[in-house]
Amino acid sequence: MEKNDNRGGVTIPTDRDFTRQTIDIAARWGADAVRDCDGTVLPDDIKNGGYKVYSTYFVIRGDNEWGNANPDEWQHVFLTSERVLATGKTLKIDIMKGYSADQLAPDYGALSYWQVIDRTAGTVLDADMWTADAKSGVVTVQNTVPMREYAVSFMAKSLWDPVHMYNALTNGWQTEKQRMYDPLYPKTDEYAVKHMSEWLDNNPAVGVVRFTTFLYQFTLIFNDSNKEKFVDWFGYGMSVSPRMLDLFAAEYGYSLTAEDFIDGGYYATPFRVPTKRLRDYMDFVQRLVTKKAQRLVGLTHGAGKEAMMFLGDCWIGAEPYGEYFKDIGLDAVVGSVGGGVTVRMLTDIPHVKYVEGRFLPYFFPDTFFEGNQDAAVAELNRNWLTARRAMMLKPLDRIGWGGYLKLAAAFPEFINRVGEICGEFRALKANAGGGKPRRALKVAVLNAWGKIRSWQSHMVAHELSYRQIYSYQGILEILSGLPVDVKFISFDDVLSGGALADTDVVINAGGAGTAFSGGEYWAKPELVCAVREFVHGGGGFIGVGEPSAHPGGGGFFRLADVLGVDKELGFGLSTDKYNIDKVKSHFITADVSGAVDYGEGMKDIYALPGASVVDIEFSERFPKKVNAGEVKIAANDYGRGRGVYICGLPFSLQNSRLLYRALMFAAHKETEINKAFSSDPRADCHYYPDKKLYALVNNCDQTVTTIFYDKNGKPAEKILRPMEIMWIRE
Amino acid sequence: MEKNDNRGGVTIPTDRDFTRQTIDIAARWGADAVRDCDGTVLPDDIKNGGYKVYSTYFVIRGDNEWGNANPDEWQHVFLTSERVLATGKTLKIDIMKGYSADQLAPDYGALSYWQVIDRTAGTVLDADMWTADAKSGVVTVQNTVPMREYAVSFMAKSLWDPVHMYNALTNGWQTEKQRMYDPLYPKTDEYAVKHMSEWLDNNPAVGVVRFTTFLYQFTLIFNDSNKEKFVDWFGYGMSVSPRMLDLFAAEYGYSLTAEDFIDGGYYATPFRVPTKRLRDYMDFVQRLVTKKAQRLVGLTHGAGKEAMMFLGDCWIGAEPYGEYFKDIGLDAVVGSVGGGVTVRMLTDIPHVKYVEGRFLPYFFPDTFFEGNQDAAVAELNRNWLTARRAMMLKPLDRIGWGGYLKLAAAFPEFINRVGEICGEFRALKANAGGGKPRRALKVAVLNAWGKIRSWQSHMVAHELSYRQIYSYQGILEILSGLPVDVKFISFDDVLSGGALADTDVVINAGGAGTAFSGGEYWAKPELVCAVREFVHGGGGFIGVGEPSAHPGGGGFFRLADVLGVDKELGFGLSTDKYNIDKVKSHFITADVSGAVDYGEGMKDIYALPGASVVDIEFSERFPKKVNAGEVKIAANDYGRGRGVYICGLPFSLQNSRLLYRALMFAAHKETEINKAFSSDPRADCHYYPDKKLYALVNNCDQTVTTIFYDKNGKPAEKILRPMEIMWIRE
Repeated sequence: MEKNDNRGGVTIPTDRDFTRQTIDIAARWGADAVRDCDGTVLPDDIKNGGYKVYSTYFVIRGDNEWGNANPDEWQHVFLTSERVLATGKTLKIDIMKGYSADQLAPDYGALSYWQVIDRTAGTVLDADMWTADAKSGVVTVQNTVPMREYAVSFMAKSLWDPVHMYNALTNGWQTEKQRMYDPLYPKTDEYAVKHMSEWLDNNPAVGVVRFTTFLYQFTLIFNDSNKEKFVDWFGYGMSVSPRMLDLFAAEYGYSLTAEDFIDGGYYATPFRVPTKRLRDYMDFVQRLVTKKAQRLVGLTHGAGKEAMMFLGDCWIGAEPYGEYFKDIGLDAVVGSVGGGVTVRMLTDIPHVKYVEGRFLPYFFPDTFFEGNQDAAVAELNRNWLTARRAMMLKPLDRIGWGGYLKLAAAFPEFINRVGEICGEFRALKANAGGGKPRRALKVAVLNAWGKIRSWQSHMVAHELSYRQIYSYQGILEILSGLPVDVKFISFDDVLSGGALADTDVVINAGGAGTAFSGGEYWAKPELVCAVREFVHGGGGFIGVGEPSAHPGGGGFFRLADVLGVDKELGFGLSTDKYNIDKVKSHFITADVSGAVDYGEGMKDIYALPGASVVDIEFSERFPKKVNAGEVKIAANDYGRGRGVYICGLPFSLQNSRLLYRALMFAAHKETEINKAFSSDPRADCHYYPDKKLYALVNNCDQTVTTIFYDKNGKPAEKILRPMEIMWIRE
Repeated sequence: MEKNDNRGGVTIPTDRDFTRQTIDIAARWGADAVRDCDGTVLPDDIKNGGYKVYSTYFVIRGDNEWGNANPDEWQHVFLTSERVLATGKTLKIDIMKGYSADQLAPDYGALSYWQVIDRTAGTVLDADMWTADAKSGVVTVQNTVPMREYAVSFMAKSLWDPVHMYNALTNGWQTEKQRMYDPLYPKTDEYAVKHMSEWLDNNPAVGVVRFTTFLYQFTLIFNDSNKEKFVDWFGYGMSVSPRMLDLFAAEYGYSLTAEDFIDGGYYATPFRVPTKRLRDYMDFVQRLVTKKAQRLVGLTHGAGKEAMMFLGDCWIGAEPYGEYFKDIGLDAVVGSVGGGVTVRMLTDIPHVKYVEGRFLPYFFPDTFFEGNQDAAVAELNRNWLTARRAMMLKPLDRIGWGGYLKLAAAFPEFINRVGEICGEFRALKANAGGGKPRRALKVAVLNAWGKIRSWQSHMVAHELSYRQIYSYQGILEILSGLPVDVKFISFDDVLSGGALADTDVVINAGGAGTAFSGGEYWAKPELVCAVREFVHGGGGFIGVGEPSAHPGGGGFFRLADVLGVDKELGFGLSTDKYNIDKVKSHFITADVSGAVDYGEGMKDIYALPGASVVDIEFSERFPKKVNAGEVKIAANDYGRGRGVYICGLPFSLQNSRLLYRALMFAAHKETEINKAFSSDPRADCHYYPDKKLYALVNNCDQTVTTIFYDKNGKPAEKILRPMEIMWIRE
């Protein structure tokens, strides 16, 4: 067993019948905490083994006795039927077509909340135009207009918790469907407190109650093949209920409708520019969840235990960056780590004592099967390297892994590598944890959400990669590990004034019309002028993809004048575009070797007169000549400030350097680039003034020879082993 | 000299000092007409040589004595200044910045027609907020809001005819700037008649007056380097004048403003969905031009001469597919041939006795320089093959070439090849000219313009290729040579009813928001329902690019249900897309060898459940799995009809076959594909029932072995020489 001073900050999963081995591996990893998982059981001898003990706690599921006895207090969600074409004057719609009958059932008791919508005209039908038949599941619509499409927005009851359903279907669990009950309703409200109290009494060995989570599941809907149909990690859809809507109406003086949630079928995901009504609803749910969670956390504290929130599953309404989060009184948050963004999403959470990250891979049979050890170690390293990059800025307080330890135990090299990582983590925390590293400048990410979605933009769920967003999400992943201050601000913040103070560079990144680029917000002259004023006065503005896009007035990018580029929508072909000459070299791309990976990039971008074309591509069919070429990067002087356009930027070490340079350029800080710096983009350099320490971090699995520049720009050659962190004393 | 029976239908250009050679080459080509060009002079001995003699006639330029004497009747155009950022309470805008002072000058006498616009807020400033200083060319705006952009829409006078300017600058002409005078004004109106009468008297040898053209030049604006700044072959911008606006207001009861023409800087090109106000204006100008042109044509006829209109230059208002065109009373139209589309644009013109095409290359020094003979012949063949493909459907009545014959004469192989082409043309006309070839089905191209822009959609000028449109323009180029009836219909036609009768397949092709896909028209439920009804009842609908696109109501393509696809705008990522399995084979792509060229294609297209995925592409980063893939072609059953989606289709022989198959598929005519058909897509087959003749046309410069199917589907192998037309008697 290793010495105690290489112990701590690590949580290990375990299960019954694996006690001895758990203790052994815990010693090798320096683990000081054990946890159960959804689907595992903590053995008693571990509970009493001197470890901090985490236990999963479910508020709204897990007690099927209660659930089955109280179907009148099950949870709800709004769903839309398919759009169905009317071919005559009467139309029958099978509303559950395409949905999992195992998961969901229409709530015919809540018909007054349903809507039938003419989706071709965009009008809601009067309630006397349709009837719903509970027996057949069919809504019959009268007086339809032929060749229009109609859809039914109906309230459904959740029959089966979707996370339990997923695990049961994926891992072949034979357990009974877990019901979902709603503490918004009076019986369950009372029950939730009683159950928690009893559970606390019955689990004296548990030190940390890991809430998974509070009241409402993120939206997760299955189709008629019991496969995922819809997933939104941020969605408030499954918080809805007749009672919730009634309470909302009573407080706000207006009623929400099904369409506020259905949103034409988009279900008001965070990609949609949020309406005032949605924001009201989110605020309402947050206050309600806070109140209920506060009470449970109070009971936990009363029992002498810590309260930890799992950022995932039923976390809706418990927004870590929301206004009310601090009132819940949590001790800790734990979340899954997909990369640097999810690390920062955890480490930047205010008002908790510590945050913990659960690393990949999970010890599940999809990775831990015979012959797959190398791949498992590779995934471990990949996950660690990307996460570590962000942890150099702000480390997690604790790390851990999840799943079945006995599966991982069959891979000795894997177990060994985790041990090394745990040691590296403790060193990192000791060196970098206390002191804030030097920041080269201050960045504000500007979108429709701002602070509440800090590190949460361009995500459907976790850091899952989708073709349409990885070129934007890359910006955040890059920022998570750059030596810069990052804050997230909203358009409303800018409109209220002051949000751009104490900022060096503003970033606006995303696809046209999305909440992340801003859509109709950019029709407001006040917003456009506020950003222009910031840049004109000396600030930097970096736009990625379709920044400030909102068609109108002869252009597309409302800040085209700042960016030096616009997008040709097909209306402006008659105007000749002459600015096609690439600059010979540019500060922004000085460290690029080979081609830049622009991801999905962006088509039809052209440079305005006066802008510097940093990179432009021509095709074989349209070689270099006037009106040809697609601008990839442009730089533009604007008053005393600068605008930079980048067509797309997936995460890579080269692109990380490119964005860092773009930031320094936009902020007129070119001369400071060589301070606390590694010449080779594969290595990062951070300086911790409190500790008088530099970290030179090799982010790749090759040896890197680089010039290390200290904070004054003094160079020295360094050779870094693969994945090494070299700590250099000042 | 060749025999008379291989003579006719060909026009040859000539110039003074080249008489003998012209006669010789005319004999070799079988030319029966000679013409001058802009910049050449017809020699007298040619005029009297037994040829039909064309002479160029200018109505609104060419007589600088008149022009210089009457600056008060020069032509006008609305221009917008650059957008200029206000940084304080007063703003000075140099309105001519970026424009050619050689071409244009602000008309300070027409200040009441000017506007100053806050382009950030989209508001027009009160006239007392600004002043214009003629001396400095500066407009001073008072009480500006800092950080807003302002632009001046001003009326300018044309100082120099832009076509003359182009030729003078390009060809180094040392002649005086040609002025442009406006027959809408009374003195010039009277002058125009007088001048024409005198000219007719003075040119007895001229048989054909080639009007170049009537009153108003298509929009062609030069920048401050005297390079092209803006070009719109269809634009009405240069028809505007104070008097025109006043007359319009008097008749219509409302006034047009500068912004109706400036359109935010897009200048209301045909790519913009036309407003009612623009349509009113176009109608007004057409009626006016018709009246004035009618008078000149009447004089021409009175002098015993033919009147030919050049479709180009000052053709604005003389819309060949417009309502009033027939009233002009023209004998002929001549136009430049860029490919099949421009051939059909000429040959489908109603109400004239004959149409003539001017082929490429022009005999200009940019092609006819020493050592470039092979390239010149190659361009000749390329132009001839693409044009001939369309002529098999409807031939031109006459062909011809332009430029300096003496340059071409230096290339004997070129002269020889033109001779061969002239012979082939006469045979083609004799065989295919009288009888309408068999048509397999009836196609309607649906866009915002309809008939008036027949064969004129997706064009900036001629058939010039732009990256953003060649994937749509390809559809028209393909249609120009397919054995199908083609008509152009507008959304208003569909809304008025009846436009879809007697149609097999409707095509809607274009980029989102453009007049060609339709933009906001698709928000009208009546339009959506009318097209659905057509397809549901058995019709075919082919969408290309972003057909029926108009965001809203949870989708993008309003006919997504018909097409079986929609475009992911970034709002719908939470919904899983499972339809990613390509069908094993499909009728539409049965003749494809190798990869399909989709041109610019279209990103983010996904198939709806139930649609057949005919082609889909995955990337290395996003290999085949749910939510991945970009659909390229999809086919969809819809009621008794069918929808087909194609992401883009530039012109090629393979793509021509692909679209023909898509049309036959959409029309449920798969079993008729092998009638009057060539198995090899590089060859076309046409059947002329009146002549009981088949034409098997090799469209490429290689030998093609193909199966020829007669009209009953009986096969026979045929071997076609490069570029051969094989005429087969029934």
